[in-house]
Amino acid sequence: MTETYDPSRTAVLLVDPYNDFLSEGGKTSPRVEPVAKEVGLLDDLRSVVDSARETGVRMVFVPHRRWQPGDYETWGHPNRSQRNIQEGHQLARGSWGGEFHPDFQPWPGEDVAAEHWGSSGFANTDLDFQLKQHGITHVAVVGLLAETCVEATARFAMELGYHATLVRDATAALSPERMHAAHELTGPTYAHAIVTTAELVTAFKDVRP
Amino acid sequence: MTETYDPSRTAVLLVDPYNDFLSEGGKTSPRVEPVAKEVGLLDDLRSVVDSARETGVRMVFVPHRRWQPGDYETWGHPNRSQRNIQEGHQLARGSWGGEFHPDFQPWPGEDVAAEHWGSSGFANTDLDFQLKQHGITHVAVVGLLAETCVEATARFAMELGYHATLVRDATAALSPERMHAAHELTGPTYAHAIVTTAELVTAFKDVRP
Amino acid sequence: MTETYDPSRTAVLLVDPYNDFLSEGGKTSPRVEPVAKEVGLLDDLRSVVDSARETGVRMVFVPHRRWQPGDYETWGHPNRSQRNIQEGHQLARGSWGGEFHPDFQPWPGEDVAAEHWGSSGFANTDLDFQLKQHGITHVAVVGLLAETCVEATARFAMELGYHATLVRDATAALSPERMHAAHELTGPTYAHAIVTTAELVTAFKDVRP
Amino acid sequence: MTETYDPSRTAVLLVDPYNDFLSEGGKTSPRVEPVAKEVGLLDDLRSVVDSARETGVRMVFVPHRRWQPGDYETWGHPNRSQRNIQEGHQLARGSWGGEFHPDFQPWPGEDVAAEHWGSSGFANTDLDFQLKQHGITHVAVVGLLAETCVEATARFAMELGYHATLVRDATAALSPERMHAAHELTGPTYAHAIVTTAELVTAFKDVRP
Repeated sequence: MTETYDPSRTAVLLVDPYNDFLSEGGKTSPRVEPVAKEVGLLDDLRSVVDSARETGVRMVFVPHRRWQPGDYETWGHPNRSQRNIQEGHQLARGSWGGEFHPDFQPWPGEDVAAEHWGSSGFANTDLDFQLKQHGITHVAVVGLLAETCVEATARFAMELGYHATLVRDATAALSPERMHAAHELTGPTYAHAIVTTAELVTAFKDVRP
Repeated sequence: MTETYDPSRTAVLLVDPYNDFLSEGGKTSPRVEPVAKEVGLLDDLRSVVDSARETGVRMVFVPHRRWQPGDYETWGHPNRSQRNIQEGHQLARGSWGGEFHPDFQPWPGEDVAAEHWGSSGFANTDLDFQLKQHGITHVAVVGLLAETCVEATARFAMELGYHATLVRDATAALSPERMHAAHELTGPTYAHAIVTTAELVTAFKDVRP
Repeated sequence: MTETYDPSRTAVLLVDPYNDFLSEGGKTSPRVEPVAKEVGLLDDLRSVVDSARETGVRMVFVPHRRWQPGDYETWGHPNRSQRNIQEGHQLARGSWGGEFHPDFQPWPGEDVAAEHWGSSGFANTDLDFQLKQHGITHVAVVGLLAETCVEATARFAMELGYHATLVRDATAALSPERMHAAHELTGPTYAHAIVTTAELVTAFKDVRP
Repeated sequence: MTETYDPSRTAVLLVDPYNDFLSEGGKTSPRVEPVAKEVGLLDDLRSVVDSARETGVRMVFVPHRRWQPGDYETWGHPNRSQRNIQEGHQLARGSWGGEFHPDFQPWPGEDVAAEHWGSSGFANTDLDFQLKQHGITHVAVVGLLAETCVEATARFAMELGYHATLVRDATAALSPERMHAAHELTGPTYAHAIVTTAELVTAFKDVRP
């Protein structure tokens, strides 16, 4: 792994670190847990976030739309994921499940992008704009889920001109087969780098002045 | 004026109907008031909104970012308008000035776009996406200010492929000269139609089945 | 399959039907051929295109950037796919490989979007704009490759507010495993419908007045 | 004027330097000429371009769609400018008027963005993407016309997160009143800086290492 990350131009995009995905008792966490445990997701996310804050890499939170009454009901064509949320009220605004996991709270001065309706944190949000105001050219995309919002956000990052890094063990999918697809089948077609948490943390430290 | 507006494909974009712009005691309303009174802004906006709701034209609210502590402070290059808000706290979240005027409140099922940081209600928001989910192809842009957010939103509408209509007397500018520029100098270069409130209301009614 | 496609609002997005992918002697066609033969790609693409033209569904061609000297050379961070093209000159402008397959030529009045640099036919092109000028709300994405440009274009379609359909046998991937991932693992997370060519053709005919 | 321009992050966006606008005998040049002569447009554009090339500021050409047969004919709603081109064949592809003025030709390695259909050089093009691949955060927008494509491109630049500079005498409008509006009425509401050619050239030189 030969990528370098200038901290003044790099951001970690932490996608959807909600209790519903990450905490015991979350609505989707039982389906996330097998892969999350396998890779050590919570510890890895903590390492990435700590490392970013220590080295001056910008932390940006990229939240999915929190469900609220009325959402999707007038739409011409919500997709299956959106209909699931419409029925299951995952990530409900004002609920515990729709709050960020206690270990992944924005610090003052860190950015929180506008909420995304689909899978990509860039689509229909101010994420690209916020990154531009901070001179960011490189992003590492971590969080949930590997095959949906993380993949879509990283794909958009590349399409919008950013250098995009995936982190194999700082994400999780709803099945091992989907996790494999995200990092071995589709990831290599668009991402600039696919690294481990340990490799990313080392790379962040290497350029610290 | 020969435009027709199929109500199933048309939306009124009501831009920034905040107390700070429209109500006595608002932070910017003293500067808006001369042109607003001249054109009869409040009555015209009420006519447009009533007419849209009666004829089945979709109402969409397009709000500017409500200022909150921390906004703009880490940005590389806020522009003059953004620095003014940073200092003057116009449209402050949680304040009366940052609430919509009482006559211009969204009804259940009407859309409220994500807040915009610049002037265009489309830039970095879900406005285009929301319009697509409702099959909208034509928009009439009204509200505040004629030379900033209304113009920028209508320009983006055209650039994004919508049919864009300006309404001469359902908006106001910070000076008569700017109002003139918006409708006589720049508007004709990009807008598909520039009409009066009376003409728009008639056009909405004409296609009512 | 219960989707319906109003021909006045539907487009087929035919992605990258280049000789280099589809024709004997193309630079990438040896790697495409196994899956393409398995699904009967060429016949299926012909069926989709013929059916669209017969039923009044709009045909839109969505071409990848044709390589030309200088491409990618000054970029800060081309990704692996782009570096491969930089070295291998796939889809070279002015070459036979960079021409559309003879059976998939635009007819007069059909749209050809601007060329895309990445994988998504929407990113950095006029595709969304062209679709808007024709009132399109539903797209069926076919062509090459299932795991790269077809997937990325369909993902963007959904993110931009379109109803997005994948067609299992009117595309091909560089391996059976990637084909499986595109339609069984990632596709269902974002696409509104995943159908066969036969199902799509039937659906197009069913709404013919 | 206190702006500084790091050459490694700055680009000059030269909008529509076509013979039809800039050269004697061009289709629109008679209407451009009065203001162009008043400000000394050709000399100022030469100064800006020379200065950018000397100091390492990136040159990017931002061309309007060159008219070709069939353009606009199937569109649902071309605007007035587009209908004028449809009828008058300004900037026709393959014609002298649709070529860049001989003094404003791209050098090898300089970017030429995809052509824009509307007024903004960013809308439906790869301009944002190209700027990102070169680390650009600041743009100075010059060329034609002050009230249409230059204004729209600079507005989009700001909305997309760039620092946007207008140059008073390196552009022209179709009337003195429109020129005044562009720089005195609308420009100050969105642009980060409005300078003269002499000021810009000095600023470019000041940061030369």
